[in-house]
Amino acid sequence: MTENNAAAHPHAFASDNWAGIHPEIFAALAAANIGHTVAYGGDPWTLEFQATARRIFGDEAVAFPVFNGSGANVLALQAALPRWGAVICAATAHVNTDETGAPEKTGGLKLLAVDTPDGKLTPELVEREAWGWGSKHRAQPLAVTISQTTELGTCYTPAEIRALAEHAHERGMLLHIDGSRLGGAATHLGTSLAAISSEAGADILSLGATKSGALGAEAVVVLRPDATPGIEYLRKINLQLASKMRFASAQLNALYGGDLWLRTAQHANAMAARLAAGLRAVEDPAVRIAFPVESNAVFVELPEEVARRAQDQFAFGAWPTRPGLYRLMCAFDTTEADVDELLALIRG
Amino acid sequence: MTENNAAAHPHAFASDNWAGIHPEIFAALAAANIGHTVAYGGDPWTLEFQATARRIFGDEAVAFPVFNGSGANVLALQAALPRWGAVICAATAHVNTDETGAPEKTGGLKLLAVDTPDGKLTPELVEREAWGWGSKHRAQPLAVTISQTTELGTCYTPAEIRALAEHAHERGMLLHIDGSRLGGAATHLGTSLAAISSEAGADILSLGATKSGALGAEAVVVLRPDATPGIEYLRKINLQLASKMRFASAQLNALYGGDLWLRTAQHANAMAARLAAGLRAVEDPAVRIAFPVESNAVFVELPEEVARRAQDQFAFGAWPTRPGLYRLMCAFDTTEADVDELLALIRG
Amino acid sequence: MTENNAAAHPHAFASDNWAGIHPEIFAALAAANIGHTVAYGGDPWTLEFQATARRIFGDEAVAFPVFNGSGANVLALQAALPRWGAVICAATAHVNTDETGAPEKTGGLKLLAVDTPDGKLTPELVEREAWGWGSKHRAQPLAVTISQTTELGTCYTPAEIRALAEHAHERGMLLHIDGSRLGGAATHLGTSLAAISSEAGADILSLGATKSGALGAEAVVVLRPDATPGIEYLRKINLQLASKMRFASAQLNALYGGDLWLRTAQHANAMAARLAAGLRAVEDPAVRIAFPVESNAVFVELPEEVARRAQDQFAFGAWPTRPGLYRLMCAFDTTEADVDELLALIRG
Amino acid sequence: MTENNAAAHPHAFASDNWAGIHPEIFAALAAANIGHTVAYGGDPWTLEFQATARRIFGDEAVAFPVFNGSGANVLALQAALPRWGAVICAATAHVNTDETGAPEKTGGLKLLAVDTPDGKLTPELVEREAWGWGSKHRAQPLAVTISQTTELGTCYTPAEIRALAEHAHERGMLLHIDGSRLGGAATHLGTSLAAISSEAGADILSLGATKSGALGAEAVVVLRPDATPGIEYLRKINLQLASKMRFASAQLNALYGGDLWLRTAQHANAMAARLAAGLRAVEDPAVRIAFPVESNAVFVELPEEVARRAQDQFAFGAWPTRPGLYRLMCAFDTTEADVDELLALIRG
Repeated sequence: MTENNAAAHPHAFASDNWAGIHPEIFAALAAANIGHTVAYGGDPWTLEFQATARRIFGDEAVAFPVFNGSGANVLALQAALPRWGAVICAATAHVNTDETGAPEKTGGLKLLAVDTPDGKLTPELVEREAWGWGSKHRAQPLAVTISQTTELGTCYTPAEIRALAEHAHERGMLLHIDGSRLGGAATHLGTSLAAISSEAGADILSLGATKSGALGAEAVVVLRPDATPGIEYLRKINLQLASKMRFASAQLNALYGGDLWLRTAQHANAMAARLAAGLRAVEDPAVRIAFPVESNAVFVELPEEVARRAQDQFAFGAWPTRPGLYRLMCAFDTTEADVDELLALIRG
Repeated sequence: MTENNAAAHPHAFASDNWAGIHPEIFAALAAANIGHTVAYGGDPWTLEFQATARRIFGDEAVAFPVFNGSGANVLALQAALPRWGAVICAATAHVNTDETGAPEKTGGLKLLAVDTPDGKLTPELVEREAWGWGSKHRAQPLAVTISQTTELGTCYTPAEIRALAEHAHERGMLLHIDGSRLGGAATHLGTSLAAISSEAGADILSLGATKSGALGAEAVVVLRPDATPGIEYLRKINLQLASKMRFASAQLNALYGGDLWLRTAQHANAMAARLAAGLRAVEDPAVRIAFPVESNAVFVELPEEVARRAQDQFAFGAWPTRPGLYRLMCAFDTTEADVDELLALIRG
Repeated sequence: MTENNAAAHPHAFASDNWAGIHPEIFAALAAANIGHTVAYGGDPWTLEFQATARRIFGDEAVAFPVFNGSGANVLALQAALPRWGAVICAATAHVNTDETGAPEKTGGLKLLAVDTPDGKLTPELVEREAWGWGSKHRAQPLAVTISQTTELGTCYTPAEIRALAEHAHERGMLLHIDGSRLGGAATHLGTSLAAISSEAGADILSLGATKSGALGAEAVVVLRPDATPGIEYLRKINLQLASKMRFASAQLNALYGGDLWLRTAQHANAMAARLAAGLRAVEDPAVRIAFPVESNAVFVELPEEVARRAQDQFAFGAWPTRPGLYRLMCAFDTTEADVDELLALIRG
Repeated sequence: MTENNAAAHPHAFASDNWAGIHPEIFAALAAANIGHTVAYGGDPWTLEFQATARRIFGDEAVAFPVFNGSGANVLALQAALPRWGAVICAATAHVNTDETGAPEKTGGLKLLAVDTPDGKLTPELVEREAWGWGSKHRAQPLAVTISQTTELGTCYTPAEIRALAEHAHERGMLLHIDGSRLGGAATHLGTSLAAISSEAGADILSLGATKSGALGAEAVVVLRPDATPGIEYLRKINLQLASKMRFASAQLNALYGGDLWLRTAQHANAMAARLAAGLRAVEDPAVRIAFPVESNAVFVELPEEVARRAQDQFAFGAWPTRPGLYRLMCAFDTTEADVDELLALIRG
């Protein structure tokens, strides 16, 4: 996405990763900064995050903190698939559009991308690429990946995920969830995190934290035992093994140890809902919301001069594949005043 | 290395990455945590680090913050070499021994490892693998990499680096420095950082921060224009592009913007010198320092029962390729009391 | 494709690579089998093929014999692209559907696949993925690949290729042609081989021979100087460097040194035309030709019982992505009697 | 190796792959050239080679014909190892010195190269790199590869191979044999092919044919069930799946179906023995045989002017890592007259 670099304004609508560190997460970093501890994951904070992951996702969950979302996705999928594996994904998936080919180039995977109306796969859509097992001429479809929330801000319901998981398992495939905004989806749906991941049958999860207010931390959470042989080696090979891992784990603990993931998502979603309501009330019929607003993202069509006027004050981005479409992202620290100011600019 | 997990003692001698975050670096993180800023490196802190890199390493330096040292090394070498490239390194080099094959598996490089007496390459040692250009049967040696300080705690002098750079350039090869502890070397040698990198003819540098007290940040610093085409893409492909890059850059600025790198290294080196002096004074002739102590590392032969006694209090590691050899690492926060207590345990 | 293994019948319609070695090519192998010669391409037969390639494709052509078509495609595209490159292709392209992910997994490329009605790209279709240059989040589209003939048996006209080449070049991309059946296309179109490759602006070519009657030989032909730096090394790295290369080159010389490529294609295309005419004359309206017959391939919809009846005698395959569709391939040695016998079986 | 391109002489001493096709193998190609057959390995010739492989190597052997020796080695080792695997080899091994880094770059493997006096590993030498299992920082040594005959023309006895296999298995590693000249070794040792491979405990074999008189064919022979999961896919991904595989298999059948492998090796070894005897009789003390002559290779130190004089008539190569050392290779078609003529030139 091309984002304008606008605005000294402290709160942009460009991306939730333009935001900084949530104060509670920052406090957790300070609390972890005491003397020496075992490097590379043998520390108490990482052990604590393992317990947290089990509490949230079930007793079989095993967590592997990593640096960033692309790292989590490439590691999760590479670890789950043999060298001849392929991954079915929506054409709009982050792994397909925003990772510079890392899944192919670093992960050694083939992506089988399927067009979708709203960023969401269905068993029927998966079926388009779910064939050819046993043919030595075809990269073997052995995983399906979905993004929750999707890159278009939409959510899968627990039932939709369960249907995808069951379908994948029937076909001998795993289900991976790119959950860089999993909390936002659970919050929108009013479910637990497990209800849209482990309990719905997913096998592996990329669990986000950075977009929820971490400095920089994500985790691969393996939900089914033995789904990812050798992941400890692969994390290092994929350059995702932090020496001072305690600090990644401390961030994850702060977010997921209690309800911070929920509070941050409730706030960001509420700001997006306020923004969407305001946009729907705009009289100009050229201002149109493009996808259901089910998280902290609002996709809206804007006349070019309107977009420019708003971008003078608030950075946000034009969607690359559809002229006139813009993405407005709310974050844990977006304020009602930010939203109202943006709406005023759009109303003109 | 196998390290014992010992000791609730707040200061181990296991590794400088068992230490936490230096207070001045922590303060820099707090100072950077203000509202929204451009993600992925377009922020003021990253711009400031670019200026810092130019000030330290010369006007042609361009810096690329990354997550960790393996990431810096793999990215630097991959970006500098074509797909048919090979890298000459000491057999003891971190890229060869401690990165789980990431240079080969993720970087797509071939390493040409040379045995050395003390972890240091010389033009004569490089020459053993510096041949075969133009032969389509041989991966082309197009870079030499050295570690400063070496994995054995030794340092290259500016003259030694210059000789390696000139030799490499004569042969059409680049010189890369794995400088995860570059500050420690400069401090030991009493030189500037540039004197042992850009001014000595090196082409690319992995500049460390984590081992000097950062939470987790390193940088590839490209010293020769055009040495690393496409590095912006490759940083993402190698899963090293931080969304909230301002926090990596803030750490780097805190360390390299002033003299913190020097002060932390002076302290760690002084603690190692104190430790070495104490070890040399031990009467037991089986306690022997194995390599010149030129940084914050002390390699020492210890009788097994002595090692065990000391490891009950302080975590430190046995060197994997030489039975009876141990590595004692000092950090920015090692105290004289820690050193003296360890010496007392060794003396028994 | 799933092919039935039927039939002791000496001539199948399964694929042109079910055929054997053309007698003239076999004679060339015999003629090359005289004593010792330089291995790995320094032999007179390979030199002769270089001259042949220049004569056919122009003075700047440089040829690199390889083992097979996947090898030619992966080598050509990898050599033409940097590590951050992506290749725009039709979704039906052999590189996308029939190479088990080798372009991604071995070539390190990302494919940007576009749906097409007939297996043919157009500048408009290319445009769907031709964007995002300079964005470090997107694998950079730096090549377009087309298949001539396409996997659906259709042909690009010289004007269509020229339009694609000009469009690609305007966007800073190369044009690669997967010409495993290039001769078939030139024959159908009544043009020279150059008219649909070098003269039409293509930059790199995978030139087929196996499907035209070779034992096993293809070549990457580089049409634009410097399009593929390091290709000599990459041929070896991609496991495509034959030690006894003279025999690959002798096959290529036999096919392309005179008019054998034309005669074999004329025959195979004529057999396909005869077959298509016969199929069009079948009264059963469920027997329908699916794509224009422009080469040696006939795609036809058949009722299942008809297909089974025919497959009892002649092996041929069901098209994997469209139930009821079958591919009938003619080869250099398909006879009129084979065609008529197959038609009789289909008519029932 | 740098070889002079000398000599229109029909028989060089440059390499056994400078030779052509043995008449019996050529006849087998002709016999296989009858009509259509199933592509990609479903043909009767490939089935026959499977039976041959079982007969020679035991009931559990499964064979996968490929194009060339590098292809066999990279495929065999990649298929046998997970993504985090490393392979212990002699520093002189073909995989390490003559494959342009393909094992690393295409296979994704790390090689752990060990110096040897004579190109032969021993359990003691293997032990230098056989450590670190379970450490996530070290590529995991999971295979040992040896070359039989070695690149220096020496042979492993059955007992030596058994010791290596047992040692490898004790350590949880596989034993792979690069047998591009396996027949030469069996002939020298007076054993069966199985006695130095399957019966000696090896798990996977690269079985050569090209250097014994094939046009171009080798095979991966998997000796232990389940040693190479997914090898069918990987053969295609490594660009080693021949469409007209019958011709590769026909060559392998010709060589290994009867005793042609033995007769060709007996002849080549005898010519090398004659050459070695003649060289030992040369009065000039500067003409010295460097390694035991145990196959078709003779390594000899020659004064430069002697080498030049001989190279005017017969192509042969200087060994790249030891000035003054030359390799003289005999082939299935080397004649006594060739040997005597070469000796005369060396005697001067």
